[in-house]
Amino acid sequence: MRTSQNPVFIPGPTNMPEHLRKAADMATLDHRGPAFAGMLKPALEGVKTILGTTDGEVILFPATGTGGWEAAVSNTLSPGDTVLAARFGMFSHRWIDLCQRHGLNVQIIETPWGEGAPIAAIEEALTNDKEHRIKAVLATHNETATGVKSDIAAVRGAMDAAGHPAMFFVDGVSSIASMPFHMDDWGVDVAITGSQKGFMLPAGLAICGISPKAVAAMETAKLPRTFFDFRDMRDSMAGGGFPYTPPVGLIHGLSVAVEDLLTEGLDNVYARHTRIATGVRAAIEAWGMTPYAKTPDLFSDTVTAVKVPDGFNGTDVVTRAASEYDMAFGVGLGEVAGKVFRIGHLGQLTDAMMLSGLSVAEMCMADLGYPIELGSGVAAAQSVYRHGDNVLALAAE
Amino acid sequence: MRTSQNPVFIPGPTNMPEHLRKAADMATLDHRGPAFAGMLKPALEGVKTILGTTDGEVILFPATGTGGWEAAVSNTLSPGDTVLAARFGMFSHRWIDLCQRHGLNVQIIETPWGEGAPIAAIEEALTNDKEHRIKAVLATHNETATGVKSDIAAVRGAMDAAGHPAMFFVDGVSSIASMPFHMDDWGVDVAITGSQKGFMLPAGLAICGISPKAVAAMETAKLPRTFFDFRDMRDSMAGGGFPYTPPVGLIHGLSVAVEDLLTEGLDNVYARHTRIATGVRAAIEAWGMTPYAKTPDLFSDTVTAVKVPDGFNGTDVVTRAASEYDMAFGVGLGEVAGKVFRIGHLGQLTDAMMLSGLSVAEMCMADLGYPIELGSGVAAAQSVYRHGDNVLALAAE
Amino acid sequence: MRTSQNPVFIPGPTNMPEHLRKAADMATLDHRGPAFAGMLKPALEGVKTILGTTDGEVILFPATGTGGWEAAVSNTLSPGDTVLAARFGMFSHRWIDLCQRHGLNVQIIETPWGEGAPIAAIEEALTNDKEHRIKAVLATHNETATGVKSDIAAVRGAMDAAGHPAMFFVDGVSSIASMPFHMDDWGVDVAITGSQKGFMLPAGLAICGISPKAVAAMETAKLPRTFFDFRDMRDSMAGGGFPYTPPVGLIHGLSVAVEDLLTEGLDNVYARHTRIATGVRAAIEAWGMTPYAKTPDLFSDTVTAVKVPDGFNGTDVVTRAASEYDMAFGVGLGEVAGKVFRIGHLGQLTDAMMLSGLSVAEMCMADLGYPIELGSGVAAAQSVYRHGDNVLALAAE
Amino acid sequence: MRTSQNPVFIPGPTNMPEHLRKAADMATLDHRGPAFAGMLKPALEGVKTILGTTDGEVILFPATGTGGWEAAVSNTLSPGDTVLAARFGMFSHRWIDLCQRHGLNVQIIETPWGEGAPIAAIEEALTNDKEHRIKAVLATHNETATGVKSDIAAVRGAMDAAGHPAMFFVDGVSSIASMPFHMDDWGVDVAITGSQKGFMLPAGLAICGISPKAVAAMETAKLPRTFFDFRDMRDSMAGGGFPYTPPVGLIHGLSVAVEDLLTEGLDNVYARHTRIATGVRAAIEAWGMTPYAKTPDLFSDTVTAVKVPDGFNGTDVVTRAASEYDMAFGVGLGEVAGKVFRIGHLGQLTDAMMLSGLSVAEMCMADLGYPIELGSGVAAAQSVYRHGDNVLALAAE
Repeated sequence: MRTSQNPVFIPGPTNMPEHLRKAADMATLDHRGPAFAGMLKPALEGVKTILGTTDGEVILFPATGTGGWEAAVSNTLSPGDTVLAARFGMFSHRWIDLCQRHGLNVQIIETPWGEGAPIAAIEEALTNDKEHRIKAVLATHNETATGVKSDIAAVRGAMDAAGHPAMFFVDGVSSIASMPFHMDDWGVDVAITGSQKGFMLPAGLAICGISPKAVAAMETAKLPRTFFDFRDMRDSMAGGGFPYTPPVGLIHGLSVAVEDLLTEGLDNVYARHTRIATGVRAAIEAWGMTPYAKTPDLFSDTVTAVKVPDGFNGTDVVTRAASEYDMAFGVGLGEVAGKVFRIGHLGQLTDAMMLSGLSVAEMCMADLGYPIELGSGVAAAQSVYRHGDNVLALAAE
Repeated sequence: MRTSQNPVFIPGPTNMPEHLRKAADMATLDHRGPAFAGMLKPALEGVKTILGTTDGEVILFPATGTGGWEAAVSNTLSPGDTVLAARFGMFSHRWIDLCQRHGLNVQIIETPWGEGAPIAAIEEALTNDKEHRIKAVLATHNETATGVKSDIAAVRGAMDAAGHPAMFFVDGVSSIASMPFHMDDWGVDVAITGSQKGFMLPAGLAICGISPKAVAAMETAKLPRTFFDFRDMRDSMAGGGFPYTPPVGLIHGLSVAVEDLLTEGLDNVYARHTRIATGVRAAIEAWGMTPYAKTPDLFSDTVTAVKVPDGFNGTDVVTRAASEYDMAFGVGLGEVAGKVFRIGHLGQLTDAMMLSGLSVAEMCMADLGYPIELGSGVAAAQSVYRHGDNVLALAAE
Repeated sequence: MRTSQNPVFIPGPTNMPEHLRKAADMATLDHRGPAFAGMLKPALEGVKTILGTTDGEVILFPATGTGGWEAAVSNTLSPGDTVLAARFGMFSHRWIDLCQRHGLNVQIIETPWGEGAPIAAIEEALTNDKEHRIKAVLATHNETATGVKSDIAAVRGAMDAAGHPAMFFVDGVSSIASMPFHMDDWGVDVAITGSQKGFMLPAGLAICGISPKAVAAMETAKLPRTFFDFRDMRDSMAGGGFPYTPPVGLIHGLSVAVEDLLTEGLDNVYARHTRIATGVRAAIEAWGMTPYAKTPDLFSDTVTAVKVPDGFNGTDVVTRAASEYDMAFGVGLGEVAGKVFRIGHLGQLTDAMMLSGLSVAEMCMADLGYPIELGSGVAAAQSVYRHGDNVLALAAE
Repeated sequence: MRTSQNPVFIPGPTNMPEHLRKAADMATLDHRGPAFAGMLKPALEGVKTILGTTDGEVILFPATGTGGWEAAVSNTLSPGDTVLAARFGMFSHRWIDLCQRHGLNVQIIETPWGEGAPIAAIEEALTNDKEHRIKAVLATHNETATGVKSDIAAVRGAMDAAGHPAMFFVDGVSSIASMPFHMDDWGVDVAITGSQKGFMLPAGLAICGISPKAVAAMETAKLPRTFFDFRDMRDSMAGGGFPYTPPVGLIHGLSVAVEDLLTEGLDNVYARHTRIATGVRAAIEAWGMTPYAKTPDLFSDTVTAVKVPDGFNGTDVVTRAASEYDMAFGVGLGEVAGKVFRIGHLGQLTDAMMLSGLSVAEMCMADLGYPIELGSGVAAAQSVYRHGDNVLALAAE
């Protein structure tokens, strides 16, 4: 099958480094043997470091982030339990929907799309919950639909300020391994991500960090689960195995990915994402447009939803990029359908790749009659990416 | 990472043909675009043909067979519902356990390991269930733990004889695409398998065939589910997509695998499995041993549990094969731990590969003091595999 | 090993499509069996079509273009024979050097670098050669060092005008399969290329097209050769084999590459190269610079040598691109070292990839103090690449 | 393309370990940059160690062993020079033929096929050459056509005994990296091998070890050469590059292969080949047949030519293995065509793989009416491969 040679700019799955693809593409080996245990252990340890936890544990399911969400609630809660969640994008919406389907009572804080987790409203809701009916607070760290990063430390601050004992579940699907995450410091009880974003692997692993509090909760949780049962997984993983057939190649890939990330240094990884995202935002400004995220503190470093001018449909940019230039961007979802197009800029990505994406976005917008100047966004991003700090040094050589 | 160059003889995941591995190892593409839809459709159609259904539909989850079991019950049943199941091996046991964890009332027919689905007992139980409290009958087509193939047509016959309206769920994880399966003819409502057995792909897909009756049941089923929800999947797949991130490479691989199997011809595929299995059984007989399956009609064509002589521990054969000869066989599980070792012979396998497996099994048994003659089992299998029918023709040339 | 995720812009080896890499990466098979013959034949046939020959034959050596040059002369000439060649770049120079090392008498027409094959001078030299001492005329179709395309039809015209019976050897290493080539129409006796340029494969195949006249010449040629002997190769290839171990994977890759090129249509392939090259030249003009090739008719569609302003060293651009932006361009070689940097734009390349290359070139030049405006070249190329012809249609939808 | 899943038993190219295939399958990188230099250097150093030289150098050509032969003579000799060579198989014959085509005077010692280099005759010829007209002695270390290993140390001994100053060229194509080789100790001036045998890579590299004496000879050698010129290669490799486009992937693969071999330990590598070959020879004896090599000291550890009984044609075994069992063996070549079939047992190979090859050979012979017992050869090889020495230890555990 012929595949495009162009990078993708969807907000995940990301472009995959070739050596990670090779690591994930393995001949069959016996998953009950020591070779598998030998790759599972460093994968789990590496993810712990990336999640920022020493107290917690890591559990892997052969699933996706949605499976991680389901694992988080089904392992810790019982039918009828109340959880608190804000809705400000498609992915926070879907998690709420999942909870409702599982018979949970979701106390929803409706929040305008483009904003982040509403700290004050969360604190108020928790403060008002004198009886501590709220068993868990759910937060979407990085709302992929709107390109909004929420302040997770502040959510924890609100919980502490309210003196509320609820558990804290964080969807870090499109943030973890690309943006700073501090599970222990933030008091996160379940952190969720997948293999196909910051870890730059194919989709197929739901990655969960769980705190001792979550472990304790699983003993009393009454929601049914088997495939996603933390108990079976903890028992099996302790022995270097899985309770059922594991996706061996992905786990080997994960062991290599975490080694790569830690070798690069997490600060460098995060700085790289910030630099590339800054270039994208510079391009958007040069086009006379803005991110959908309302304020700079909300700007995500992994995905940007670009607000299109009135009279234009952002989906057309995406459609045209695919049909004419063989390049993938993300459409607006749900409430922002048509109002934005999305540029994913996470995982494996170089400045040069990003510039090719911005170039194509410009061509599409020009084709569609957007009032933008070809090359303008590229130039703005180049100014960010250019190694200007070396120029003087060069001159002095 | 260095991997063994030897084939594996675990009862799945199987050895993978190189071209399927290459098909599954893809660069990232936009899973919301037409390229993905273009590979999903033939994958679904091909699986339908292999399942033997025209009335039914196929649904894929990024999970494993265990997830398929969970999907089967959670989409069609409600807490407190009764299901009927026989327990005669580790995998039938685990499915029963899953049902119980999900709040179902499992009417269990305890059956000796080494036997198959107890047709008469099933018919009796159904006949006795005048009030039709039994909502579903669960059957394990091929019990991987004991190498026992059950007569699914006969189970259907028992249901019909009892005039019972229960749904019929069949675990075909280690049979489908390797042994004949006739979903429509057998009146199966949910058939379950995975990508890593007869389809010869990496683990990571739960593959479900569902009948119109199962589709109807999902409207009233009250067990909670989101990740494994048939409804979301049906809606999305109708549009060529997924409700969440799909494992694109595996689905592409599946589209190629089904094309391969159908090009070879299913009768040829099944005959190939029978021929290889017959050679394995000839070897076992030459060793003076027997399969754990009690009678020839129960012999599985995809896995054989070899009953070891008194005084020996089958697990030692497996351990020794791994440590000394870098080859993987399966240990006995649960009730048959130590009493057997298992030889997987499904999926991608040539006669030559099988002979290498039998050769190593012989060396291990000889090392451990088994009263077997080196080469004896190989010779018996060679007699089966040899193209003896050509010899006279050769002489006449 | 981690490799760059950025495309390369060296003038070969080119970027390789993933499916061609997979085609070339094969498990070992018996090169004396029918499977090998089954891939060799379509590879040879496909190359014939691409060379534009029905009268000629194709021969493959496990070598590179340099080996092809050596094969051309050693199979057709004898020590002391005279050949006529123009020198106007590093690669025409090297071929002359090869001839001299092989004891040939090379009548050299020194031609300024940046110009192409000097038609009038060639005609004059041939006309003056009344005794027909010149046995072969050598021409470099596309001088990779300067980005100059010569008019091969005109060289043939000069030969015909002079009524000279010399053989005609053409180096098409960086033109064939990317730019039009008409072996029969141009009366080419040996055409030479490699696997790693227009065929988009790894280096390792010298590809030679030979005319009946060249075949006849090999009977009397006295230069020694064994590895590069046309006679052994013709004999073996007629039977679907090789006289020694062939590079099986590359030949399989070639069979797929030619199928791809012919499916795309050679006119489309050439138009694609012209379009991408036109964008590059538009960028250079926007930078206020020029190609090293002196006139537009000489502009190569596969590589452009960019003349750098006085006071700058083109090699610095290349060095900086590699060290700072992880991207490969080509340095100036020989006489033009420092005076140019080279942008390869052949083989597998999309508009988006090319724009990333131009973006990085701009950043490097800006870093080094070149008087260019960031984004200017990109914008000029975008104007070429943009699907402007669709805009009106879009408006009308 | 579907490829066989069975191993090959041709005497090269060998089966390739997957991680070496992945190492050789690389995206394009700039071969003029430091990344290439960084893989070339360890490849060259590793090969030196494997050749057993500290005085010598290593040179790599993008070619095959035949190219290595040509490089050896064309870089060190002049037209009309005399070389001494014994002919006792197809590959020693071909090298002689190559020398003759290059205008050398080959003093040939005709030796029965099945024997090795005739030490006494070589010493006699050298002793008789009072005028030292013989410039080089050529020896085929491992004659792949007959499965005969020659005593290279003894050839050197003969040269020393004769006090003859000739250079010493050794074809180690099917021995180096699989059987002990001591370039310095044996006073070898040019040692030749390829990538596709002991190094377990695809074909495409001629690997030459050259002594200081060979380096000195290249200054005066008058045979023409360019592609295979040691001088260009030495100059370029000193700077981490190539004089023309290198096969980057193969060189990266070589860097990994040498690291693997040295990590395993050369003594272990050689012992592994001896063990596997001993099993093959035990099988042949059990079949009532013999190797073509006349005495045990001549038995090659990388390939065995099996002498077939009168009235049988060895080629039929090979043809039948391919057509009926999808497995590749080697036919007899030249003088031994039909008299033998050949089993390659070099490079990447496990005991289990070898047993599959012996099993298939048995089935083919049985099909063809050979008087052999199925399983007999396998049993004999199993006795060799079995870890019998562990059995008592096991009992004591």
